Amino acid sequence: MVKQVRLIDYPAGRVARDFWSFSGDALPALDENQIKVRIDWVSVDPGMSGWITDKPSYMPPVKPGDVMRAFGVGEVVETRSERIKVGDWVTGFLGLQTEAIFAEKAVRKIDVSQVAPQLFLSGLGMTGYTAYFGMMDIGQPQEGDTVVVSAASGAVGGIAAQLAKQAGARVIGIAGGPIKCAYLTDELGLDAGIDYKAGNIGAALDAAAPAGIDLYFDNVGGEILDAVLDRMNYRGRIVVCGSVSQYGDFAAARGPAGYMRVVTHSLKMQGFTMRDYMHRLPEALDALARGYASGSLKFREHVLDGLETFPDAYEMLFDGRNHGKLLIDIRGDH
Amino acid sequence: MVKQVRLIDYPAGRVARDFWSFSGDALPALDENQIKVRIDWVSVDPGMSGWITDKPSYMPPVKPGDVMRAFGVGEVVETRSERIKVGDWVTGFLGLQTEAIFAEKAVRKIDVSQVAPQLFLSGLGMTGYTAYFGMMDIGQPQEGDTVVVSAASGAVGGIAAQLAKQAGARVIGIAGGPIKCAYLTDELGLDAGIDYKAGNIGAALDAAAPAGIDLYFDNVGGEILDAVLDRMNYRGRIVVCGSVSQYGDFAAARGPAGYMRVVTHSLKMQGFTMRDYMHRLPEALDALARGYASGSLKFREHVLDGLETFPDAYEMLFDGRNHGKLLIDIRGDH
Repeated sequence: MVKQVRLIDYPAGRVARDFWSFSGDALPALDENQIKVRIDWVSVDPGMSGWITDKPSYMPPVKPGDVMRAFGVGEVVETRSERIKVGDWVTGFLGLQTEAIFAEKAVRKIDVSQVAPQLFLSGLGMTGYTAYFGMMDIGQPQEGDTVVVSAASGAVGGIAAQLAKQAGARVIGIAGGPIKCAYLTDELGLDAGIDYKAGNIGAALDAAAPAGIDLYFDNVGGEILDAVLDRMNYRGRIVVCGSVSQYGDFAAARGPAGYMRVVTHSLKMQGFTMRDYMHRLPEALDALARGYASGSLKFREHVLDGLETFPDAYEMLFDGRNHGKLLIDIRGDH
Repeated sequence: MVKQVRLIDYPAGRVARDFWSFSGDALPALDENQIKVRIDWVSVDPGMSGWITDKPSYMPPVKPGDVMRAFGVGEVVETRSERIKVGDWVTGFLGLQTEAIFAEKAVRKIDVSQVAPQLFLSGLGMTGYTAYFGMMDIGQPQEGDTVVVSAASGAVGGIAAQLAKQAGARVIGIAGGPIKCAYLTDELGLDAGIDYKAGNIGAALDAAAPAGIDLYFDNVGGEILDAVLDRMNYRGRIVVCGSVSQYGDFAAARGPAGYMRVVTHSLKMQGFTMRDYMHRLPEALDALARGYASGSLKFREHVLDGLETFPDAYEMLFDGRNHGKLLIDIRGDH
């Protein structure tokens, strides 16, 4: 039996635990140019909060009653496509379900001969691409720059921070708690880790970045952005890569208090989503795969087991309980 | 007797009427490479609020007891410089005073043979340069773009709006009151004028920019920025050219509430000051002078008479009573 996770209704705020139902529907026969995929891994992403709201966003919302949208990887088990064969592996918005039918053009083939398939949901997938384009195309770290990355032990932040380090920058990561901060310096090789839960982030930034900050890769917005803004150097750049601290409650979202510094210090703040870069995925995949193969880039995963963990997994994104790219292994649900 | 306006103390907030004193000091003899200038016109600028605070900014603050910093134009009446002769006209930070001594390198010679000297304090001075670089170098209006300019009847905004119009954009100006709005369409030739004092700026923007906004030249910050942000198109650009609504009370300055849209719509917000462009002044002067000579650019001045008007003039900047570049004619003070 095929299993699915469906959205019941748009949650108010970020608490969504009661807004999911589990179904077990059978699949119809394939039409021409369709494939059937057995889905092995699904990805849980902060961007999901933007899909389960009726506020217009960069993608159409998931409607109540729909299978929840999610990135996934899986193997083709049946095909009426000439391009995609049984045994091929694919990725894309496969949804929170164990098996499903897709138009051939709705998925992208992946080569899992050298790497584990789920890497295409973390460092070799949208997570890695987001870090790559945000840091390398918008941020453009220079040798000697002081770079700060928030949520630096997270999926996107960890890769972005490593990329800046590779570019010759001095990199300061911000994360929650001593374990994650130790990971930043000991595992990822960053120059400093700041525990925002320890309080007084301003003083910690002053100590770690005495010459000010040239580039900030912002994953969180809110108070951390305020503290960093106050310390940005002349002509500093801020890459705005989502704002997890503001997700889930759009109405109350607020901008940085230090807005005036954008003028006085000629700062540039630039937002982006992967929508801007869909035509350049091969460039990112190539750079990330080379870094991973050589050992210079590390991708950390946080794996849960089974579709039924999703309601809890979704909330983990917003309370910081996960450490690494949050994935659900659904092979046991088949 | 030489007259000066001096700062008594840093004002708290934007009310500064009681923070000025008038002095009448004699001048010493010239040193080598110095010149004495008779100052005819001085400029009153929003940037002044950033000079009379002890908060670090892009320029060192004016200290209590100092002559207040101001742009001015004047004629050289005595010289020990080889480069600058008696009868030459100069501009620069000449200060709120009728006559003063400067190092030759502290001033810039201007050619007043074709235009009135005070134009070098408005359209052919920093005001014009600010509009030029902000709109043309950062904003880069394209043919067919929808461009919004706030404080569009003001000194910088009026020129910025006309430059966007020349570039082939559809230009919507925002100003306070029906007289200023009529000026935008009737005198400057903009496509629409929105009176922010009439309320419901969002609905007015929807009506004037039904296809959304591609470029916003922000002179004011605050609620108008919020309303514009909500209507920015994908990949829109926001030029942050000072934030008059936030000046004078830095501690309470707040950022745009619609910060999330920076991410979802891949917006770019970029601040600047003239500090970034001091090496490119001739380019701006040339473009502005040509526009003025041909009649395609109009520069509006609001002229007060005498140094003693300065405390009131300074407050006019923040309550919107001036209409056009605020200048003080101090020829009667000599």
